[in-house]
Amino acid sequence: MEEKEISQAVVSRLPRYFRYLGELRDQGVERISSQELSRLMKVTASQIRQDFNNFGGFGQQGYGYNVEFLYQEIARILGLNDTHHFIIIGAGNLGRALGGYLNFEKRGFLFKGIFDQNPDLVGTRVRGIPVMPMERMESFIRENEIDIAVLTIPKAGAVAVAERLVKNGIKAIWNFAHVDLNLPANIQVENVHLSDSLMKLSYNINRNKEEKDC
Amino acid sequence: MEEKEISQAVVSRLPRYFRYLGELRDQGVERISSQELSRLMKVTASQIRQDFNNFGGFGQQGYGYNVEFLYQEIARILGLNDTHHFIIIGAGNLGRALGGYLNFEKRGFLFKGIFDQNPDLVGTRVRGIPVMPMERMESFIRENEIDIAVLTIPKAGAVAVAERLVKNGIKAIWNFAHVDLNLPANIQVENVHLSDSLMKLSYNINRNKEEKDC
Repeated sequence: MEEKEISQAVVSRLPRYFRYLGELRDQGVERISSQELSRLMKVTASQIRQDFNNFGGFGQQGYGYNVEFLYQEIARILGLNDTHHFIIIGAGNLGRALGGYLNFEKRGFLFKGIFDQNPDLVGTRVRGIPVMPMERMESFIRENEIDIAVLTIPKAGAVAVAERLVKNGIKAIWNFAHVDLNLPANIQVENVHLSDSLMKLSYNINRNKEEKDC
Repeated sequence: MEEKEISQAVVSRLPRYFRYLGELRDQGVERISSQELSRLMKVTASQIRQDFNNFGGFGQQGYGYNVEFLYQEIARILGLNDTHHFIIIGAGNLGRALGGYLNFEKRGFLFKGIFDQNPDLVGTRVRGIPVMPMERMESFIRENEIDIAVLTIPKAGAVAVAERLVKNGIKAIWNFAHVDLNLPANIQVENVHLSDSLMKLSYNINRNKEEKDC
């Protein structure tokens, strides 16, 4: 199937569709209409139809979507049938948490190595894999066909480490460091700025309070 | 200053403005034009002006923005001058990582307690605070004026725990469990679905590869 370039807003919604369809599939549901999916996901049916139209529609008019087919198609579009090898830079609690998620493995993301500059952490294990010193990072990337790096180090060192990663062939960075990386356009970066998310929560608590005070 | 209702898209961008203005301020920069801020942040100057117009503009025509004033205003809008008390449900690596972030404290988010159902974790400490058993959660919320709960437990228990939290007065949930919570509209929920973010990265790697293959 030919796919046109789709917006990052649509891409952002695909994992959620994928999650709901996976649950429906596990429950043995075979078909679902955009109206039912709309009620379940609390988005409009027209939004669902529009989103799916980006990929050729998937649907049979008046007949609903085939859950298994749709699930597999979204998996394919998201590239979840491919295998990716990832390393984690930073073996603090967050790095250890991400290394420990078995769910990532189910989606084709294989945890291959973890690095830290703290000698006390080097040699400790995360899911059986020993933490390596930062000096081993470059050769490890090249020898193990690593395509994704997860950055869970403080902001101060993150930009320099990201440049080293890219120089050694990393294609994508999942960035938890609280800084924008400004890498070449062919390097994919997905930022998870946890403080930003907490501030958004703060705004909404505040706003809700003001409304009640009125 | 009166503020109109602003979109969540604008709210989502405020923490990033806040971060850049904080850095400019730390560097001793007193004024900045929307053009300079645009170059720095890699967003259009017109986007910046539009966003700031939601809050009355902040700017002096042809004179640029006062960095300190803008920084303080955004802090106020985000509610960062208020103090919030938060607890963490789930004392695994992710819960421990979030409990350990001192940055949250600087923004007025005070870490007050952490809970887990695993008896092996109860009594271990996170930033000096002992992990408590789940049975203590309800009374602790009421006795310590807790307004925010951070959910870092697996999806299976998350919905039921969220309902217990809300029943006992929690106003906002920072949800890392991989499930939508469907709580009353006056409860603020901010989801951080880590797998979704990784899938988005996967899509973009895939897309980039296909483009190169063409």
